[in-house]
Amino acid sequence: MQQTRLDIARIRAARRVIDPVFLDTPLYRCEALEPGLGCAVSIKLETANPVRSFKGRGTEVVASLLAEHGPRAVVCASAGNLGQALAWSGRGRGLDVTVVASRFATVAKLDRIRALGATLELVDGDHELARERAADIARYDGIRLVEDSLDLETCEGAATIGLELLELLEPKGQQAEQTELAELAELTALTGTAPPFDTVLIALGGGAMATGVGHVMKALAPGVEVICVQPLGAPAMTRSWHSRHVVTTDSTDTIADGVAGRRPIPAVLDDLLLVADDAVLVREESIIAGMRMLLDHASLVVEPSAALGIAAVLEDRDRFAGRHVVTIVCGSNVDVDAYQGWVGHHR
Amino acid sequence: MQQTRLDIARIRAARRVIDPVFLDTPLYRCEALEPGLGCAVSIKLETANPVRSFKGRGTEVVASLLAEHGPRAVVCASAGNLGQALAWSGRGRGLDVTVVASRFATVAKLDRIRALGATLELVDGDHELARERAADIARYDGIRLVEDSLDLETCEGAATIGLELLELLEPKGQQAEQTELAELAELTALTGTAPPFDTVLIALGGGAMATGVGHVMKALAPGVEVICVQPLGAPAMTRSWHSRHVVTTDSTDTIADGVAGRRPIPAVLDDLLLVADDAVLVREESIIAGMRMLLDHASLVVEPSAALGIAAVLEDRDRFAGRHVVTIVCGSNVDVDAYQGWVGHHR
Repeated sequence: MQQTRLDIARIRAARRVIDPVFLDTPLYRCEALEPGLGCAVSIKLETANPVRSFKGRGTEVVASLLAEHGPRAVVCASAGNLGQALAWSGRGRGLDVTVVASRFATVAKLDRIRALGATLELVDGDHELARERAADIARYDGIRLVEDSLDLETCEGAATIGLELLELLEPKGQQAEQTELAELAELTALTGTAPPFDTVLIALGGGAMATGVGHVMKALAPGVEVICVQPLGAPAMTRSWHSRHVVTTDSTDTIADGVAGRRPIPAVLDDLLLVADDAVLVREESIIAGMRMLLDHASLVVEPSAALGIAAVLEDRDRFAGRHVVTIVCGSNVDVDAYQGWVGHHR
Repeated sequence: MQQTRLDIARIRAARRVIDPVFLDTPLYRCEALEPGLGCAVSIKLETANPVRSFKGRGTEVVASLLAEHGPRAVVCASAGNLGQALAWSGRGRGLDVTVVASRFATVAKLDRIRALGATLELVDGDHELARERAADIARYDGIRLVEDSLDLETCEGAATIGLELLELLEPKGQQAEQTELAELAELTALTGTAPPFDTVLIALGGGAMATGVGHVMKALAPGVEVICVQPLGAPAMTRSWHSRHVVTTDSTDTIADGVAGRRPIPAVLDDLLLVADDAVLVREESIIAGMRMLLDHASLVVEPSAALGIAAVLEDRDRFAGRHVVTIVCGSNVDVDAYQGWVGHHR
């Protein structure tokens, strides 16, 4: 594999500074989903933690570094999950956290950012305007800007999910931290142990999770296909991946607020080109069908971004027939009324 | 503490035979619930596994013992969760599993028992009739009867939840398995470490979870108050606990199907008298309000039994004001239409 910005040793080190409440999340086969999808499906559940998304992994890395030797004030733009996670991680370490978000963001996310004691500033525009405003605040106030997916800590935090996906590869009782990469590769070769899954489906937004988990797969389990999934209504990064250069869009139109960016970051795209095997776009109705399947057959309430993997299978059953996919259920912060409107059986 | 039928060393041993997919479940503070409840609330989430309830812990113990040196055929009565879990655990070990259930049981639970390859027999009556029928089958066919809460393995499996609740008590890196009881007690005394919670709320049905988790608390963290919660519509065990002898009821009337027994088992009551600090009854509307709070503020779909702890706080806010409760969210197997009918925002 060519060099991405990521590194397995750093990812293992990141794992050691993350609060355990975000680690070792459930990974389980969900057979009730399988008749409807035509393939084996395992869920990696990133919602059962204090901020209900995977973003705490990255903000723990960011905040622990800042608490050690950085400025005590920090700002980020967020569709809601990063901001909530940074507010949580910052509060525990006495950091002063500012979050900039679109005033159209999910209300539950904004409420929880405020409840965690962060300063919340709303912009009258979309997430890209929030990014600009956050950068301005950082510049004017001289505080640390956390840029999701660009800042390596956010990718390394997300990448720890990948290490946990591979735990089944490892001999019992031997921790990821204690296993050298070479040893692991050798062991895998010797025993012929295959991972119990052959495909990982990753929601694609800014790219932190896709490049992070993708890097781990390509480094430690290169046989696993890494497929990124984005909504047709917010296709910038996927189009960029296919054309191998940054493609921006003028607007987004999707309920999957967590992945609705318009301006991919070049360095992140470069990494994604090295670790993703494919990037696919899915329709809104497939996202909703995926959310409904996760409710009906897995008793899981998820936000739209977390249903992208299931949506990808629904849109291309032939491709996945007979395979074993892991889908990362990455967040569950929804406005319940909106959620009920999407999936509601009672109308 | 007087002797219950349980034993910490056996519970630790049980933990070693349980498939890891059921262990180390999420335990996290859920602050979004707290303004509505007036106390600190942590969730121990037992739903993110292949059978979506805590029952897999017990059936793993049962099935691993049977696979080693027992009969290869087994029968149990179940409201649905035990049967599903026994079907899962038995399938993995080549056991022949029969489940007897009421024909009024939750459809989703029955479907999943069948899907896991167990033989399902329905009786035209309630759970107590299913218990009688399962005992008859065991007698006539000479196969092993698994009796929930009476069979120690079911209590020991559930008790492993208690060990995990106490992990925060233990020094980092030291595993429960490696810590002797005396050492742990000494360490706790020396460091003055208090558990980060002072109350555990446990759904009370047959009593496996209440006696199991209660035993662990009384043995290793006697300062934690153990409160059992049962629906007013199925109060037999709670009434028995208060009167210190078995009290049966003629019928049950509750949506909390998982805990709707009428005939407490004397040996289980004896244990419960030794480990529970209180047993309370809650109204159906409080159970529904609890389910709705878990959906609105924790993005969790739960079955009614799993909302009993929240219901208990809702019914007696003064008692819990300022305290830190852990509530075990013990199952999420619901018929989605019924669930939507209970909690639905859209009607």
